[in-house]
Amino acid sequence: MTHTDLPDLPDNRGRWGADDQRGTLNLIDADALARAAACVRTGTWVSLALPTEPASMLGGPFAPPAPPSPPVQQALLHTGTPPMGMSEVLVVTPHHPALTHIDAVAHMPVDGSVYPDRPLGEAVTAGGVAHGSTAAFAAGIVTRGVLLDLAPGSKLPAGHPITAADLQAAADLWALDVRPGDALVVRSGWRFSWDHRESGPGMTVDAVTWMHEHGIALYAGDVSDTFPPVDPSIPMPLHMIGLARLGMPLIDSAAVDELASTCVGLGRYDFLLSVAPPRVPGLTGVPVNPIAVF
Amino acid sequence: MTHTDLPDLPDNRGRWGADDQRGTLNLIDADALARAAACVRTGTWVSLALPTEPASMLGGPFAPPAPPSPPVQQALLHTGTPPMGMSEVLVVTPHHPALTHIDAVAHMPVDGSVYPDRPLGEAVTAGGVAHGSTAAFAAGIVTRGVLLDLAPGSKLPAGHPITAADLQAAADLWALDVRPGDALVVRSGWRFSWDHRESGPGMTVDAVTWMHEHGIALYAGDVSDTFPPVDPSIPMPLHMIGLARLGMPLIDSAAVDELASTCVGLGRYDFLLSVAPPRVPGLTGVPVNPIAVF
Amino acid sequence: MTHTDLPDLPDNRGRWGADDQRGTLNLIDADALARAAACVRTGTWVSLALPTEPASMLGGPFAPPAPPSPPVQQALLHTGTPPMGMSEVLVVTPHHPALTHIDAVAHMPVDGSVYPDRPLGEAVTAGGVAHGSTAAFAAGIVTRGVLLDLAPGSKLPAGHPITAADLQAAADLWALDVRPGDALVVRSGWRFSWDHRESGPGMTVDAVTWMHEHGIALYAGDVSDTFPPVDPSIPMPLHMIGLARLGMPLIDSAAVDELASTCVGLGRYDFLLSVAPPRVPGLTGVPVNPIAVF
Amino acid sequence: MTHTDLPDLPDNRGRWGADDQRGTLNLIDADALARAAACVRTGTWVSLALPTEPASMLGGPFAPPAPPSPPVQQALLHTGTPPMGMSEVLVVTPHHPALTHIDAVAHMPVDGSVYPDRPLGEAVTAGGVAHGSTAAFAAGIVTRGVLLDLAPGSKLPAGHPITAADLQAAADLWALDVRPGDALVVRSGWRFSWDHRESGPGMTVDAVTWMHEHGIALYAGDVSDTFPPVDPSIPMPLHMIGLARLGMPLIDSAAVDELASTCVGLGRYDFLLSVAPPRVPGLTGVPVNPIAVF
Repeated sequence: MTHTDLPDLPDNRGRWGADDQRGTLNLIDADALARAAACVRTGTWVSLALPTEPASMLGGPFAPPAPPSPPVQQALLHTGTPPMGMSEVLVVTPHHPALTHIDAVAHMPVDGSVYPDRPLGEAVTAGGVAHGSTAAFAAGIVTRGVLLDLAPGSKLPAGHPITAADLQAAADLWALDVRPGDALVVRSGWRFSWDHRESGPGMTVDAVTWMHEHGIALYAGDVSDTFPPVDPSIPMPLHMIGLARLGMPLIDSAAVDELASTCVGLGRYDFLLSVAPPRVPGLTGVPVNPIAVF
Repeated sequence: MTHTDLPDLPDNRGRWGADDQRGTLNLIDADALARAAACVRTGTWVSLALPTEPASMLGGPFAPPAPPSPPVQQALLHTGTPPMGMSEVLVVTPHHPALTHIDAVAHMPVDGSVYPDRPLGEAVTAGGVAHGSTAAFAAGIVTRGVLLDLAPGSKLPAGHPITAADLQAAADLWALDVRPGDALVVRSGWRFSWDHRESGPGMTVDAVTWMHEHGIALYAGDVSDTFPPVDPSIPMPLHMIGLARLGMPLIDSAAVDELASTCVGLGRYDFLLSVAPPRVPGLTGVPVNPIAVF
Repeated sequence: MTHTDLPDLPDNRGRWGADDQRGTLNLIDADALARAAACVRTGTWVSLALPTEPASMLGGPFAPPAPPSPPVQQALLHTGTPPMGMSEVLVVTPHHPALTHIDAVAHMPVDGSVYPDRPLGEAVTAGGVAHGSTAAFAAGIVTRGVLLDLAPGSKLPAGHPITAADLQAAADLWALDVRPGDALVVRSGWRFSWDHRESGPGMTVDAVTWMHEHGIALYAGDVSDTFPPVDPSIPMPLHMIGLARLGMPLIDSAAVDELASTCVGLGRYDFLLSVAPPRVPGLTGVPVNPIAVF
Repeated sequence: MTHTDLPDLPDNRGRWGADDQRGTLNLIDADALARAAACVRTGTWVSLALPTEPASMLGGPFAPPAPPSPPVQQALLHTGTPPMGMSEVLVVTPHHPALTHIDAVAHMPVDGSVYPDRPLGEAVTAGGVAHGSTAAFAAGIVTRGVLLDLAPGSKLPAGHPITAADLQAAADLWALDVRPGDALVVRSGWRFSWDHRESGPGMTVDAVTWMHEHGIALYAGDVSDTFPPVDPSIPMPLHMIGLARLGMPLIDSAAVDELASTCVGLGRYDFLLSVAPPRVPGLTGVPVNPIAVF
């Protein structure tokens, strides 16, 4: 992926020093927190996570049917007869597209290095992730979130390349003043699908540049990069540029329909966004249940 | 455990119907949300989760040392040479005491039934948890949280039985009016220890009765039930009565020291509490990173 | 399952003492080993295990398709860039019907006790299997094996209840003298199927009684108990009587077609059988690859 | 690791074609099988696997103590109250040095390629092992085994570099005629240790060359490569040359003391060796319980 060395692509590498691991989260300042706080009036709230049923790890004729390659598997534990208590062991594939999760910058090395400029061999060793892991946000993230609904009440056309103009139009529709340190939540009206034949819309470099110019701290959406890419010359711009060059954490497979309905109902399109994955550093990604509070 | 059938113990079973799975979360009403919202002024926030380092599943002479029985294990995945992206598979033991997590009512059957009165064999089958699972709060919980610090700047004596008087005194110290639907956060100054010889303080039935009378919707603390129990005749009152009879979800192994410092610094002891575990229903417990927003 | 207390069912409980864990493996004496040794002439050999492809635990758009509820899952490990070596972590469900495995007596408690008469709560605790585990054969089993092909070159009718007469007829066909300490390998011509609507043949109590009378030390077959049972009044006789009362280890989902062809080709129907699962005691079952040597 | 391109190192790459995956197992011919068969007289047998206790995955105050980084973890499954049957899910790290296992050639790529000359990126993909996996021996291996005891009744000195002369002397001691297709079993008297400060003996290139010259099909031993290496200029000769260039599968962490005693007792030092791991292709290594039959 040498395209990322093109000089005119947006880039935060070096902006916060050679040891930085927080990337655009550095943009969340007291003002962003104050904007978030100002959004909280009634305590109404919405989850931005897909519900993910666990698949039973019990096999055989007595086991319930399970989907192939499930993101969360559950082994209910025997703890005696009668059982002392019920518990389980879980096997989790955090980056699974059917599980809402947040990517750390180490998820996406580019040209052999991890944001901002750490050789992959130093950032990720056989034993763990030493640089660029979920440590950057393991304690949580709070900031103002803004919803850009690109297709209110509807969905974008298949294969639509999402541009800066699309994002700006959605912001203008609701007179949203997107500010540095905000979390961007995008709705396209699509849902995750295993079917590669049904290619949804996808982000363009142009859209990622818009995010950079507006100082977006965090991205969440029901749309991300697509396969095949909308522009084959620069595949995966949200991951390869947004995550890897800007250091902007990505929440993949967010659920935003209920959020959109709530926004319309309240007539408000910004909110306090709390992003609090299990507090486990050292990962490249982790499931998360973002909460929008109004 | 027939002690739980004593007639004078606090009990919510039947209060919200025979099919209820939400227990005391039913107490979180618009007024509780409004109280939570009113606490949010600056956007300052604190995590109530312990940081939990993942243990590498790589064994052998090149593997890093790992603790015995770790709550989170990580297998970093090979995705090619050079790797297309970095990811992992996790093995998680949610109820591990070194991992901040939230218990669902199915975690603690009593006398063969799950809150409110579902035979264990129907509530938990070989294939999954059909009643009383994390489904009750998988989308998240938002309410007002109140901190009761039982030993400000210090720690309770070893083996101290925490009573209603202790809780009330802590509330009075900061003039806190604990209200139905609030989440109770308790600080004892202790930390989780594997060492059973060092027995910390523990909740009594008296304390759980206080929680019931005050309509606590959710409990989180750095203290819970102890082994050996503070009262051998009624072991594990927080789990056996609070969780199993009241239907009050419990956040075990919460980290509350930073919360306590923040409260003292701000001179405020209540806050909006967002409890948003990975949105996975069907479990008996799940890791969580509760966030207190001021 | 109180049927197992009927007085006329075959029973080894107590035969080798109250602490016995080896069951019918006690029948393998020097004579059985000598019979096994006498079968080895050319070194020709055959595996009695189904090949089981591992399913990748990598999820998402780049992951290969995987079957639901696979018995063996593989997470290929990242060990650096370039990798120091390739390795993996496996998740295994030993009792899965698509995986050839051997059952220990603790797999099948009957009426609350494990063979010969250990209360289940003592035999299997929350932390492990203390009695009746794979320890009985973790070091391996060697004895003479005899093949009874119930449908040479064909398959039994669907739902056929396999009786003592069926077994004896197959032994007579090849003039096999089945002796105490022998391993019995049965071919029905069926293969494992997830489809419960297609019910294969199944063992009857009569057949298990035949095994008892002949001193079978170990059972392996492409046929076992069926669902629905061939006799609803006594379901699962091979597991509930053979394993649980006789203490006869069972190799489920054995592959015997290649064995049958080899036997026909050689004109010999007995062989040295080596059953050597990974040497892990403390389990209720473990994958195994039985080897027949001629 | 460019040392492996030195022209005078033993090499089988290309000997059996560019697509070969069986390496030295190709040397096991009818004559080797006949030699194996000729060793079987009484049926006496010995396991060459270390016993490996499973570690419970149950965490917390009620869980038994577990070692760090265990090779086999067990989650006993809840299957109802009373339980329908006892079963488990296992998590296995096959290449763990405390678990007797067999290495496939894909375990050890050298200079970016897998034996005989497959680019690593083609041999091992994100989804699985396409070339050089355990498929080569998943059905099992049977051949003659010969024991070379380098320190009968004793142990080699710490750090001893094992040479061709050592191997030849051990063969001569018992007048063993090691032949192409034989499996070599080596005893040094050491046991696996996590303690890198206590460095055992280790194989040299000279010894691996001896194996090549004698047509060894398979290696098993209580000794392998050492850390630090006995010759720093050529680390890991058994793995980097024997496995990677010769295509000779390695059984790491074999247990050979009981085998040695049995050989001495019987006055025979060769035997039929059955190596039958769970029949799972597509892995880089798999636990195994080799059985020596006399």
